[in-house]
Amino acid sequence: MTSPQQTQVLVGLLGAGIGASHAPLLHQREADRQGIRLLYTIIDSAASGLTADDLPGLLRWARTLGYRGLNVTYPFKQQIVRHLDQLSAEARILGAVNTVVFADGATCGYNTDAVGFARNFERNFRAEPRNEVVQLGAGGAGSAVAHAMLTLGARRLTLVDVDAARARRLAGLLAAEFGADRVAVGAHADLARLLAGADGLINTTPIGMAHHPGSPVAPDDLRKDLWVADIVYRPTDTALLQAARATGAVTLHGAGMSVYQAVAAFEHFTGVPADADAMLSDSEELLRSGR
Amino acid sequence: MTSPQQTQVLVGLLGAGIGASHAPLLHQREADRQGIRLLYTIIDSAASGLTADDLPGLLRWARTLGYRGLNVTYPFKQQIVRHLDQLSAEARILGAVNTVVFADGATCGYNTDAVGFARNFERNFRAEPRNEVVQLGAGGAGSAVAHAMLTLGARRLTLVDVDAARARRLAGLLAAEFGADRVAVGAHADLARLLAGADGLINTTPIGMAHHPGSPVAPDDLRKDLWVADIVYRPTDTALLQAARATGAVTLHGAGMSVYQAVAAFEHFTGVPADADAMLSDSEELLRSGR
Repeated sequence: MTSPQQTQVLVGLLGAGIGASHAPLLHQREADRQGIRLLYTIIDSAASGLTADDLPGLLRWARTLGYRGLNVTYPFKQQIVRHLDQLSAEARILGAVNTVVFADGATCGYNTDAVGFARNFERNFRAEPRNEVVQLGAGGAGSAVAHAMLTLGARRLTLVDVDAARARRLAGLLAAEFGADRVAVGAHADLARLLAGADGLINTTPIGMAHHPGSPVAPDDLRKDLWVADIVYRPTDTALLQAARATGAVTLHGAGMSVYQAVAAFEHFTGVPADADAMLSDSEELLRSGR
Repeated sequence: MTSPQQTQVLVGLLGAGIGASHAPLLHQREADRQGIRLLYTIIDSAASGLTADDLPGLLRWARTLGYRGLNVTYPFKQQIVRHLDQLSAEARILGAVNTVVFADGATCGYNTDAVGFARNFERNFRAEPRNEVVQLGAGGAGSAVAHAMLTLGARRLTLVDVDAARARRLAGLLAAEFGADRVAVGAHADLARLLAGADGLINTTPIGMAHHPGSPVAPDDLRKDLWVADIVYRPTDTALLQAARATGAVTLHGAGMSVYQAVAAFEHFTGVPADADAMLSDSEELLRSGR
């Protein structure tokens, strides 16, 4: 029963083609556990014809209409940055925002992708070696993952992207923060050689998603002592992870990152700590049920 | 626990100085009973600087940001009419909307004030005579009440307003619908005489509200066989109703109208019947607790 004292929180997800997102249920179930009356809406720009030009109006009206904040995803994560009053350190470095909070005086942008990857990695791969790590993809999510991986202590991270200029740009940014000796750019043609000398491999490309089937790596380039992390989470068990497991390697699927990203967003929205284990369990249930 | 099948409904109240409204709790508690996940926000134009010029943008963005509908109150009930695609018969006749629903193709305006008064009156005053009824006030709420009273079978309704032109305008509209013999305009100076020949008196002016203390009628003009209905509901027991009860007359306070108005709005928003008795009980509890 609603009491007059119950906290009310209105939040939503802005992006294109997001109708199947689990974010509403993850946030709402956690809020229910905490006694917070939270509604999480889906603002699908593809359905409502919103473009980047609408972002200033959207931010103004979301605040006026009672929103506490928004999650932001493709294609607005970079575009929204210039319309915010304040950015967290991570959001500024990554040039991308996935969580907006309407605070009293200002509209604040956060990026919880990096912390999402880091918390999931530490939970599952605390003891894995990370002297040499190869990362596929240097886009928005890739930027956050690379930043997290270097923060987690990777001695050297080699970025491989079909768009070599994009990989070089990200490498330059990371080198400025973490040191030039810790970041390299590799060519896709050299992948076999790069992986031969690596401890771990991270996929941040969309290859392996339901509508991008396949694996970004030839099975022969995988081996037992090369851990593999994939940020794809629908499906959780990608062709890449299956091939890695077939060699005996340990693997990490993307659902955990996605949940920890939501954990951090929930905490920004509500100001109270989220129960990450319960949210992980909810996510597994939703993914298992195929929703 | 939120299930993926649970209906989600986002609605709000648009108006000035509405922070103390009971509407959020009334709607949310009823939704909780029905297993609907409903959030009811307060969009206070006084706090956010909204004016009538903002109404088109507000309607567009409320729809885009996931609102199912809005309740509308002072000062926008008349101003919003021209921005809606469709109007219910009552809204068109009254020229005022207090409930907007974002339907698939169109934005629809309803007025639930008249039905709110009517359902409350019928519940409590089913047997009261209504040959001659005097109504104080011919503004927005007064228009709805007058329409309801004539629909409920008042043989003649006499409108008394400090703004005589406003009373004449409303009388003309009602005469066109219900017949000229059933509507009259009276002068405040004649109130004693008008009431001497009346079965009932309705107050639709703000006199009696916490910030408009007093009674719109001299105690001597009241008597045992003159029922009195007041649409003021904060406080529920106005000076007028106290004076009427002191003569032995039956009285009807405004909280019931307010709740039945919300019942009708809830049904427009959710498409399912509301439990009016439970909502009345919630309203009584909220009013008793002085919130």
